[in-house]
Amino acid sequence: MTQGTVLVTGAGGFIGRALSRRLAEQPHGRLLLCDRTLPDPPPGAEAIEADLSRPEILERLLAARPDVIFHLASVPSALCEAEPATSRAVNLEASLTLLEGLASQERPARMVYASTIAVLGAHFEGPVDDNLLPRPALTYGAHKLMVETQLADWARRGRLHGIALRLPGIVARPPSAAGFGSAFWSDVFHAVKDGKDYICPAGPDAVGWLMSVRRCVDDLIHAAGLDGDQMRGALTLSALPVRLGDLVEAIARQTGGSAASVRYAPDPMIMRNFGSYPALFTPAADARGLRHDGDVESLVANALADLDA
Amino acid sequence: MTQGTVLVTGAGGFIGRALSRRLAEQPHGRLLLCDRTLPDPPPGAEAIEADLSRPEILERLLAARPDVIFHLASVPSALCEAEPATSRAVNLEASLTLLEGLASQERPARMVYASTIAVLGAHFEGPVDDNLLPRPALTYGAHKLMVETQLADWARRGRLHGIALRLPGIVARPPSAAGFGSAFWSDVFHAVKDGKDYICPAGPDAVGWLMSVRRCVDDLIHAAGLDGDQMRGALTLSALPVRLGDLVEAIARQTGGSAASVRYAPDPMIMRNFGSYPALFTPAADARGLRHDGDVESLVANALADLDA
Repeated sequence: MTQGTVLVTGAGGFIGRALSRRLAEQPHGRLLLCDRTLPDPPPGAEAIEADLSRPEILERLLAARPDVIFHLASVPSALCEAEPATSRAVNLEASLTLLEGLASQERPARMVYASTIAVLGAHFEGPVDDNLLPRPALTYGAHKLMVETQLADWARRGRLHGIALRLPGIVARPPSAAGFGSAFWSDVFHAVKDGKDYICPAGPDAVGWLMSVRRCVDDLIHAAGLDGDQMRGALTLSALPVRLGDLVEAIARQTGGSAASVRYAPDPMIMRNFGSYPALFTPAADARGLRHDGDVESLVANALADLDA
Repeated sequence: MTQGTVLVTGAGGFIGRALSRRLAEQPHGRLLLCDRTLPDPPPGAEAIEADLSRPEILERLLAARPDVIFHLASVPSALCEAEPATSRAVNLEASLTLLEGLASQERPARMVYASTIAVLGAHFEGPVDDNLLPRPALTYGAHKLMVETQLADWARRGRLHGIALRLPGIVARPPSAAGFGSAFWSDVFHAVKDGKDYICPAGPDAVGWLMSVRRCVDDLIHAAGLDGDQMRGALTLSALPVRLGDLVEAIARQTGGSAASVRYAPDPMIMRNFGSYPALFTPAADARGLRHDGDVESLVANALADLDA
C-alpha cells in the first residue's frame, strides 16, 4: 500500500499531520505532502506548500502520477457556511478536478477520501445506520457528499479505486479560537489536562460520535489497502458514542487533572447540533475491518498520546 | 405561478417543447426559452438560442431576474457516458453556476429541476420507495444527483425555493437514431401507429416506469406552484409501472394499428437495465399532488395526443 508514490492533500491539518508522520515512519516510496502551509514536514517527505485549488498545483501533483492519494484537503465547515463560493472552489471543484486528473492515469490510482458525518445531516430521529438517506444540513456536508458521488462514479467507470470515509468527531484537536460548534469535544481535553477553567457550551449528558486521531489514521491507512471490490462507495466510519461527562472523568483520571475544571453551561443550539447523536451502526465499515477506539478509556489514552504532537 | 418572468432551459428538447407550448398557452408574464436550437418557439415567448454552459449566456439569463425556472437543459445519458467531461461542463457546472446566480437574487427564485430516476441506480433488488439510497449507475445520474444536492443546500440556506423531480421514462419521444437503451418504450408507439415492422430489444414482459409527456408537464407546472415548505428536496415522481406487451396492445387498440408490428428479440442487457423495474412507491410525490397517468389506457391516450406535436 505504501509502495509507489503516495500523496497526502491537506497534510498540514490536524489529521493530515498525524497521517503524514505515520506514513513517513513506515517503509514507503515517494511521499508527497501538500497544503497551504506545512511548517514541520516529517523527514523523508516532499512538502509542497501550495493551494490545491490552483490549476497549476493540481497539474504538478498529477504529474507525479500518485499511486495512493489520501485526499484530506478542505476548508472547514464554518468557513464553508460563511463563504459557499469558497467551499465550491476548494472543497468541490478542486476535488472534482483532482479526480478527473487521476481518472486519466493509465494505472488506476487508489484514493481514500476524507468525507464527514456532516453529509448525513443533523437532528437524527432515530439510530443511524448505513441505509440513512444523506441530508446535509451544512454546505460543507453538501459539497463532501457531491465529491463522494463523483468518486463513486469514477470507480464505477473503472478509472480509479476509491473509498470515501465519513469521519466522526476526531479528538483532540488543538485549542482553537475558531467558532466550531463541536470544538468542546476537544477543548475539554486541554482544559482538564492543563487545569484551566473551561465553560463548556454542552452539558454532561451530551453524546457525540468520537474517534482518536491515532485510530483515524489507522483507519485511513487500512482503507487504502483494501481489496478493489471493498474499496468502493462511501461509508460512515465506526465511531464510539461518548457521553461528555464520562469523557471528562476519563481525561481527569488519566491526566491527573480535575473534572471540576469543566463547568457546564449548555447552549440549546450546541446541544441540539453537536451533543445529541443517536446510536450508530456501521456494518459496512465493520465488515472492512475499520474500527473505533473500543471504549472511552482507550479513546482518551489514544487521544492523549498525540495531544502535544 | 406563471406571474413574473419564467425561464425554461432545455426548452428545445422533447419535454421542454411540450412545457413551453403549455406555458405560452396559459396567462403568463415574460417567458424566456433557452436551448442550443429552438426552431419553432411558441408565440409570445422569447427564444434564446445559445449554449447554457457559456458564462455570458448564463449571465444574460440571470440578468432577466427570473422568478420561476424550469431547469431541463442537459446533455443526454449516452453522451454523458461517452464524454464525462462534457457531462461535467453542461449537466453539472452550468447548473451549479445557474444556481449560484439565482441564489444571489434578492427575491428567492423558484426552481423546478428535472432530475431523473437514473440517480437511483439500476438493478433494484426490491420495491423502490423514497427511502432508497441513490446509487447512480451512469455518469448522467451521478451529475444529476450532485445538482440535486446543491439545489437542496441553496434551499436550506434560504436563497431560493427549489424542488428536484426525478423523471421516469417519458413517452412517446420522437423516433431517434441515438442509442438510448430505453428508446424502445417510445419506439413502439411509432411502430404500431405507423404500421412499421419493429424489432424490439426487450420482451413483452419488460416492465418500465412510464409517464406521458403531457402528464409530466402537468407535474412540472404543479411543482412550481407548491408552497415553500413543500417545494424542497428531491423526489421521485409517481410513475406507472407498465408491462411492454400491455402497452403495445393498448397502442394498437387506440390507433387501429397492429400489435404484430412489434417483434420481440429481447437483449439480456437491455432487459436488465431498462426492462426490469420493480414496484414503485412515491409517497412524497403523492402527498404533493404529483400524479402519473392513472392507467395504461390513459397513458397511451395522453402520449398519442402529443405524438406529432
